[in-house]
Amino acid sequence: MRTALVVGTGLIGTSAALALVGRGVRVHLLDQDPERVRTATALGAGTADKPDGPVDLAIVAVPPAHVAPILVDAQRRGLARGYIDVASVKGGPGRALRDLDGDQVSYLGSHPMSGREQNGPLAATADLFQGRPWVLTPTVETDTEVLNLALELIALCGAVPVVMDADAHDRAVALVSHTPQLLSSLVAARLESADETAVRLCGQGIRDVTRIAASDPAMWTEILSANPGPVADILAAVAGDLDEAVRALRALDSADEQKRGGGVTGIEDVLRRGNAGRARVPGKHGQAPAAYRTVAVLIGDQPGELARIFADAGAAGVNIEDVRIEHATGQQAGHIQLMVDPGAVAVLEAALRDRGWSLRQQ
Amino acid sequence: MRTALVVGTGLIGTSAALALVGRGVRVHLLDQDPERVRTATALGAGTADKPDGPVDLAIVAVPPAHVAPILVDAQRRGLARGYIDVASVKGGPGRALRDLDGDQVSYLGSHPMSGREQNGPLAATADLFQGRPWVLTPTVETDTEVLNLALELIALCGAVPVVMDADAHDRAVALVSHTPQLLSSLVAARLESADETAVRLCGQGIRDVTRIAASDPAMWTEILSANPGPVADILAAVAGDLDEAVRALRALDSADEQKRGGGVTGIEDVLRRGNAGRARVPGKHGQAPAAYRTVAVLIGDQPGELARIFADAGAAGVNIEDVRIEHATGQQAGHIQLMVDPGAVAVLEAALRDRGWSLRQQ
Repeated sequence: MRTALVVGTGLIGTSAALALVGRGVRVHLLDQDPERVRTATALGAGTADKPDGPVDLAIVAVPPAHVAPILVDAQRRGLARGYIDVASVKGGPGRALRDLDGDQVSYLGSHPMSGREQNGPLAATADLFQGRPWVLTPTVETDTEVLNLALELIALCGAVPVVMDADAHDRAVALVSHTPQLLSSLVAARLESADETAVRLCGQGIRDVTRIAASDPAMWTEILSANPGPVADILAAVAGDLDEAVRALRALDSADEQKRGGGVTGIEDVLRRGNAGRARVPGKHGQAPAAYRTVAVLIGDQPGELARIFADAGAAGVNIEDVRIEHATGQQAGHIQLMVDPGAVAVLEAALRDRGWSLRQQ
Repeated sequence: MRTALVVGTGLIGTSAALALVGRGVRVHLLDQDPERVRTATALGAGTADKPDGPVDLAIVAVPPAHVAPILVDAQRRGLARGYIDVASVKGGPGRALRDLDGDQVSYLGSHPMSGREQNGPLAATADLFQGRPWVLTPTVETDTEVLNLALELIALCGAVPVVMDADAHDRAVALVSHTPQLLSSLVAARLESADETAVRLCGQGIRDVTRIAASDPAMWTEILSANPGPVADILAAVAGDLDEAVRALRALDSADEQKRGGGVTGIEDVLRRGNAGRARVPGKHGQAPAAYRTVAVLIGDQPGELARIFADAGAAGVNIEDVRIEHATGQQAGHIQLMVDPGAVAVLEAALRDRGWSLRQQ
């Protein structure tokens, strides 16, 4: 790929442009808002000049509802050899392109799984896609050359290609992204009118469950509006399970011992299914989370404490795979949990004890 | 406090014993399982010898359903001047003590907010309660001397006392601990039978939402069985909100523009209420989470990378308040997010750039 056209210089479009420019591709930028093009150009994401002839690949990076008309217009003007979009939902844009008699051969739907809390070209970065899945949704009509151009784009961006059917993609993101977002918001919403004393008792569990409840409502309303059916189907299934859980809890409150027994079974079932589902969530580098063991260490709150512990771990030759800080409430001390390969636990613990660190027994 | 009796040498009982022994208190240990007492004694948590006379404070650390009979027995034998329990639910044990004609004057209900994934004396540690809230639920009958003994225990354990009504406590933990646990399990349960391709798309959002879904089903069934009413009430409210969300999503799928408008409003409302609730969750040291800004840095996966970045931050005099590693899937590189005071962002960014780190623009 030697030339590309990015239509829509928001977070995703500008990030892709930055990655391509960094790998020597000549990138032309288009946006209905000239101010955004100026910003992207100033960041080094490409040129606002028109290309001399058709570019190799046009990347349409606009909200889902605008994808099809912009694609059809670009195709009619013959701006590129191949066309992809990067919208977070794939079924709707594909169908809309068909409705508008767009060309199916030169088009390929795609979705890089690299959302952020921020939007716009100023949030863009060349490494946004590094190591992330980038979904491609080819059909029987898709030209092989366009598929290869998209694979080259993904390689240049450092992402990992995943091929899926468009509707399967929409059901998948409904499951792994849109449903967790809404349920995080629903749990957090319960805190809105809670007593201050209750809120003080919040621990790391609710903190993790509600982290993404801080996301931008306008952006998420747009995403959910483009994928309402699959999300509603999964939420309805969760609602069914939730009703069962409420029934099981009411049974636990009953005077009838047999009913209470049924309640216990019902609640245990929810928790065990949660165990099974959680075990499938890939950890770092796609490995199972169970592959790591935790070493917990008491740390102070002075600058340098974290540096010192990581230096001590590094000096012992141990690779920290993940890290989590457990927050203390109202006090200046906390725990840090270091996740390491099981084989490295003994080495790390001995090294840290040697250097005077206080370990929490696991 | 010079002497204490710990009844029940599990995680909480043994941890409290270790903390008290470390502060010079003579601790006697009792458990129906002599093996557990031997383990706790071997860990240095106290003596298995019987006390010569009444101790200052007896700490009953047994599951909620066993608290009242064990308390009444201890009171009748006059084992202590004051009695507290540390069960995670407070209404039921208090009522059961009344039903068994236990003494209300020398008893005080309490709950240290220091759960862990592991159980038993081997998981115990003297610093388990450090900086954590420890709820006390005195009644009008509670003796002031017993309240002061409990406050001394909490101070010796390094915890932070919070006084609440017993039923208010049970509603609070239903909200901030029991409800998030069940909803995390319900989201994770949806992954149990998901396609492998869908699971590959999991990102940091669902990873955080489902972390506590890995918790022990047997332990959580016991906890939820002791607090079914308050949890069911909150889950029923969540179920109501969830039904509204499903209705809003179905409306977004409608051909009728006015219905779609209603759907947008409904979904935005859920997300905005989630924002408001999340903003109330205390961050580190009880501060609002918004007080920190994030600096994101690209890191490799070699040992020493984390040490190097923390050392560079420390050398710049910047205190890292929290840290999060964004996982790359199938690749050996990732991002680390350093959370710092807003005033330290510029200093940290300049220092890291100076040392050759590649920063992601925020």
